[in-house]
Amino acid sequence: MRATVMFGAGDVRIENVPDARLVESTDAVVTVTRACICGSDLWPYKAMEQSDTGIVMGHEAIGVVEAVGADVRILKTGDLVVMPFAFSDGACEFCHEGLHTSCVHGGFFGNANIAGAQAEAVRIPQADGTLFALPVGKDDALMPSLLTLSDVMGTGHHAAVVAKVSPGKSVAVVGDGAVGLCGVIAARRLGAEQIIILGRHPDRIALAKEFGATDVVSERGDEAVERVRALTGGFGVHSILECVGTEQAMLTSVNITRPGGAVGRVGVPHYETVPASEPAFYNNITVGGGPAPVRAYIEELLPDVLEGRIEPGRVFDHVTDLDGVPDGYRAMNEREAIKVMVRP
Amino acid sequence: MRATVMFGAGDVRIENVPDARLVESTDAVVTVTRACICGSDLWPYKAMEQSDTGIVMGHEAIGVVEAVGADVRILKTGDLVVMPFAFSDGACEFCHEGLHTSCVHGGFFGNANIAGAQAEAVRIPQADGTLFALPVGKDDALMPSLLTLSDVMGTGHHAAVVAKVSPGKSVAVVGDGAVGLCGVIAARRLGAEQIIILGRHPDRIALAKEFGATDVVSERGDEAVERVRALTGGFGVHSILECVGTEQAMLTSVNITRPGGAVGRVGVPHYETVPASEPAFYNNITVGGGPAPVRAYIEELLPDVLEGRIEPGRVFDHVTDLDGVPDGYRAMNEREAIKVMVRP
Repeated sequence: MRATVMFGAGDVRIENVPDARLVESTDAVVTVTRACICGSDLWPYKAMEQSDTGIVMGHEAIGVVEAVGADVRILKTGDLVVMPFAFSDGACEFCHEGLHTSCVHGGFFGNANIAGAQAEAVRIPQADGTLFALPVGKDDALMPSLLTLSDVMGTGHHAAVVAKVSPGKSVAVVGDGAVGLCGVIAARRLGAEQIIILGRHPDRIALAKEFGATDVVSERGDEAVERVRALTGGFGVHSILECVGTEQAMLTSVNITRPGGAVGRVGVPHYETVPASEPAFYNNITVGGGPAPVRAYIEELLPDVLEGRIEPGRVFDHVTDLDGVPDGYRAMNEREAIKVMVRP
Repeated sequence: MRATVMFGAGDVRIENVPDARLVESTDAVVTVTRACICGSDLWPYKAMEQSDTGIVMGHEAIGVVEAVGADVRILKTGDLVVMPFAFSDGACEFCHEGLHTSCVHGGFFGNANIAGAQAEAVRIPQADGTLFALPVGKDDALMPSLLTLSDVMGTGHHAAVVAKVSPGKSVAVVGDGAVGLCGVIAARRLGAEQIIILGRHPDRIALAKEFGATDVVSERGDEAVERVRALTGGFGVHSILECVGTEQAMLTSVNITRPGGAVGRVGVPHYETVPASEPAFYNNITVGGGPAPVRAYIEELLPDVLEGRIEPGRVFDHVTDLDGVPDGYRAMNEREAIKVMVRP
């Protein structure tokens, strides 16, 4: 089958690879109908060391179940499913607590051990726990928004949950990528009154406003902090959704948090430490977050997608087939595209 | 009047200083009947630069209102009161949210600007918002436990609240000082099933067990982490109460947290950063905490103290008059005393 293989920084190719197949009795094989390129794929795109074997990329997909192992009880061949970016057994104590990304039998797609979904098909470990069967047909116009339940919409929602967004609160979303934009949707959905987007790309800002952002801060560093304070009566913001993952974004996040407020961080951290003392400690600021248990959130978010109350699929501004994926990486890396959808 | 003045590291003296007096119309003056030395007083005791004027120390007290300013409406001369370690107006939005330590008109006792309570009397800014009038007489045997509502019991409770202790949870308390011991009380009071105390002083450990600790870990660093994991099925602990404030204590705290768990830190941080990436991010660990809004907690904790369900006053194992305070600092610094009560 054909798949997207990254061999090193900037080196993404479409290759023939062995077909996805059942390995464990709890596996399924899914024919991918939609996949996408993630902002987090850009980290290895910028920095991966050259590899002879490469990595089959991609951790977001919708597809059709093509085969199931002997111990798969819930899913059936032909089911249309969403694949969360992490697999999980759905049965361990962490899955029961809703933290599927810490499943004791879990893991992530698109790395040296588990092939990714920017491909014609993908093997799904722990299929019954991992996949979510959708109650719609595969040509549905809702497909882009449903696809975001694989990652970015669930991740933005996770940031909002960890940052304790609730009705009437002020919120800042740090980052105007697809996750940040979904964070705006999540904050509005949870009742935030003021939603400040920190970003500087006109097309993304425009979309953030349509999603519910009330204010835009395009400055960076100390100037951004000053602007946010000015917009919030001098005190800062109750809830910060950190959707970038750089040290600067984290510093800004902590510095714009109102005393007693919370930072929900979902940007994969490319920094080693969080500031501990002033202002984090003296202002009783909480910092939390991590890989979003998107599997846990699909049931909550799905009705809003199905009934059109939220349209996270609008973050896709580029569609390509597999052959166009390498150029899709380039376009996202150069900020030409917000998020690229792949139709293998 | 006589007061405890710290002039530099290791240099604590009892001096004659100007009498505490009303300055603002919202002030009260309180005659101190009980005060104490705090673990946090040991930080300047170890490191304060020499000063000619010195600092009147102490931020915990019970006393009797001796005079009130013209705008004090609630308190009356003769009231027996608890003085929280921070003053607060009780009226601003942070006070209304229960975060009195971020009061817009607030501040802390025992520093270069606001004299402390290890003295015959103390001036209380924002008296109506700050002081809590006690429904007991001043010779009551409950005095030691009531005195802990000034700081250590409220601070241990804050750590437990931020660490999300709830019925059935596993808890680790890092540090066996007075705050850690009160953290054990708080964890048990909130229904924790397993309470692991990390400490190594036999007298303190013995008290921790009487307060409800179920397990003791006296190792440090990696060995402590291993032991805690072994005690918790390999996964770590739901709720960590970080009651020390050193980098090592913070590292241990993060490393023993179960995925999805929370660290409540109340030890004044003598470290600059919190580890950001592995395991904090990948395990979705939340780190929060700061100066405890003990004023907000008095109403909740008081009935348990009055009815003897909790006895945090047992952390006092040393009592002295003012003249004995310098030796009290020495005794606490040398871990000879857990916590020293002062009867001026």
